[in-house]
Amino acid sequence: MNIAYFNGKFVPKSEISINPDDRGFLLADGIYEVVRWYQGFFYDMPGHLARLRRSMRELRINWPDSDLYPSVSEELIKKNDLGDKPAMIYMQVTRGVAPRTHAFPSPDVNPTVYAYAFTFEPEAEARRTGIKVMLKEDIRWGRCDIKSIALLANTISFQEASVNGLKECIFVRNGLITEGTRSNIFFVVDKCLFTHPESNFVLSGVTRKNILRIAEENGIKIREEALPENRLRFANEAFITNTSSEVTPVLDLGGNSIGDGTPGPITKLIGDKFDEEIRRLKG
Amino acid sequence: MNIAYFNGKFVPKSEISINPDDRGFLLADGIYEVVRWYQGFFYDMPGHLARLRRSMRELRINWPDSDLYPSVSEELIKKNDLGDKPAMIYMQVTRGVAPRTHAFPSPDVNPTVYAYAFTFEPEAEARRTGIKVMLKEDIRWGRCDIKSIALLANTISFQEASVNGLKECIFVRNGLITEGTRSNIFFVVDKCLFTHPESNFVLSGVTRKNILRIAEENGIKIREEALPENRLRFANEAFITNTSSEVTPVLDLGGNSIGDGTPGPITKLIGDKFDEEIRRLKG
Repeated sequence: MNIAYFNGKFVPKSEISINPDDRGFLLADGIYEVVRWYQGFFYDMPGHLARLRRSMRELRINWPDSDLYPSVSEELIKKNDLGDKPAMIYMQVTRGVAPRTHAFPSPDVNPTVYAYAFTFEPEAEARRTGIKVMLKEDIRWGRCDIKSIALLANTISFQEASVNGLKECIFVRNGLITEGTRSNIFFVVDKCLFTHPESNFVLSGVTRKNILRIAEENGIKIREEALPENRLRFANEAFITNTSSEVTPVLDLGGNSIGDGTPGPITKLIGDKFDEEIRRLKG
Repeated sequence: MNIAYFNGKFVPKSEISINPDDRGFLLADGIYEVVRWYQGFFYDMPGHLARLRRSMRELRINWPDSDLYPSVSEELIKKNDLGDKPAMIYMQVTRGVAPRTHAFPSPDVNPTVYAYAFTFEPEAEARRTGIKVMLKEDIRWGRCDIKSIALLANTISFQEASVNGLKECIFVRNGLITEGTRSNIFFVVDKCLFTHPESNFVLSGVTRKNILRIAEENGIKIREEALPENRLRFANEAFITNTSSEVTPVLDLGGNSIGDGTPGPITKLIGDKFDEEIRRLKG
């Protein structure tokens, strides 16, 4: 039985019932986080907690118990007996239940807090051999820095990639490559690592930040600068990062073959160093 | 007791329970409509039905019984004894319930169909004396033509207007005035009526279309063309339209006083003709 967390209680997921007046259901008025459990620890839980709080702050959603996020996550792993499995915690906080209006409820209502754990099969093959991805005009809103549940643009874009046999859809805004529907993207050009800087057009990925740190620790030159689509042909390597894909090489981007069509040396180095860090943290 | 409609059945709203795996709750993967009941008839139900179907088609959400929308709406009015009250039907269709992934569920699942009726107080005062509204950079996504439930950009923008004592937030994209968070906007410049043309940056409002027809029937010159923000000073009149506000004069837009600060003659003419049409339809 899947035990989930709902508004302060651990209950069977099958017993959870969302009120149809929940602003998450009616207006996409909420935020979420996904953190990975590496059979023994959560990777950078402080990073996820900080981002959860930032997303809520930006939307003025107030969950006073947000410091419970790490312990709720641990508890979900325990209660679902996932300690020795690759797993994730999905956590969502919406503004709460109120008669539908565009304006926020006044006075405030309690937020809806929902979290569940799930196990998954890490995509080891994709990490080793690389993936092909789609390239598409960024149709998302102007606050991609908020990890909101208003994900319709992401889902329909990912679906478009998916039906074409591609593993991700990467967005281009004003001629600049921003990120994917569920990942950040990095490029290597002349041994220098490029990724879109933090801005309202990309999510500040927890893995993105850690990869930048790992790259720096390993003496790789970094430029937090977007790659223009029309300079794609100069990219020697590309990879995406996120909580589940970690560091996954990109071999083809919208029909543009990257490098020699196999994962490049800097991508491999960064992937290896990331794996080393995971092993070290496992102790 | 409020009787709502949920997946083919009329049930007390208080008994409706949304599955936490509903893609409407997790991913804003759904659409909606709001149609107005004028104590005896729905205004332009065929227009709302056509748009409901278009929104679903654009997102490839399949509700085979969508032709039930008018009869479900009638039934909700009856069951809630709202026949002689100003009321609305809110109808929402999501892609349905499935384990969370960006890709659409495969095979398809049944959509979630939810509708309820509510009575409201028409804002007669605002219609007569006009409103002040905010002006803000359009932060919404690039498919505003789909009436989706991914409304977070709309809610936070409306809220911003609201806390400043303003009745709507009007968006500007690339220097052009698009529409409001929950309304279309029209301008009168030199006796000619301007509104943003149908495009992926505005919702094709049912009231918008009817107002264009009414204006044409009354010999008013029309240009479906966006007003650039920097030509706002040339606007003699402005008004917003939607299902609940009908035709509401705008007297001040982001601190720019419009005309002489009172509702203008063309706005009043169009409002009167709209009211006449309602009276005629009431019979």
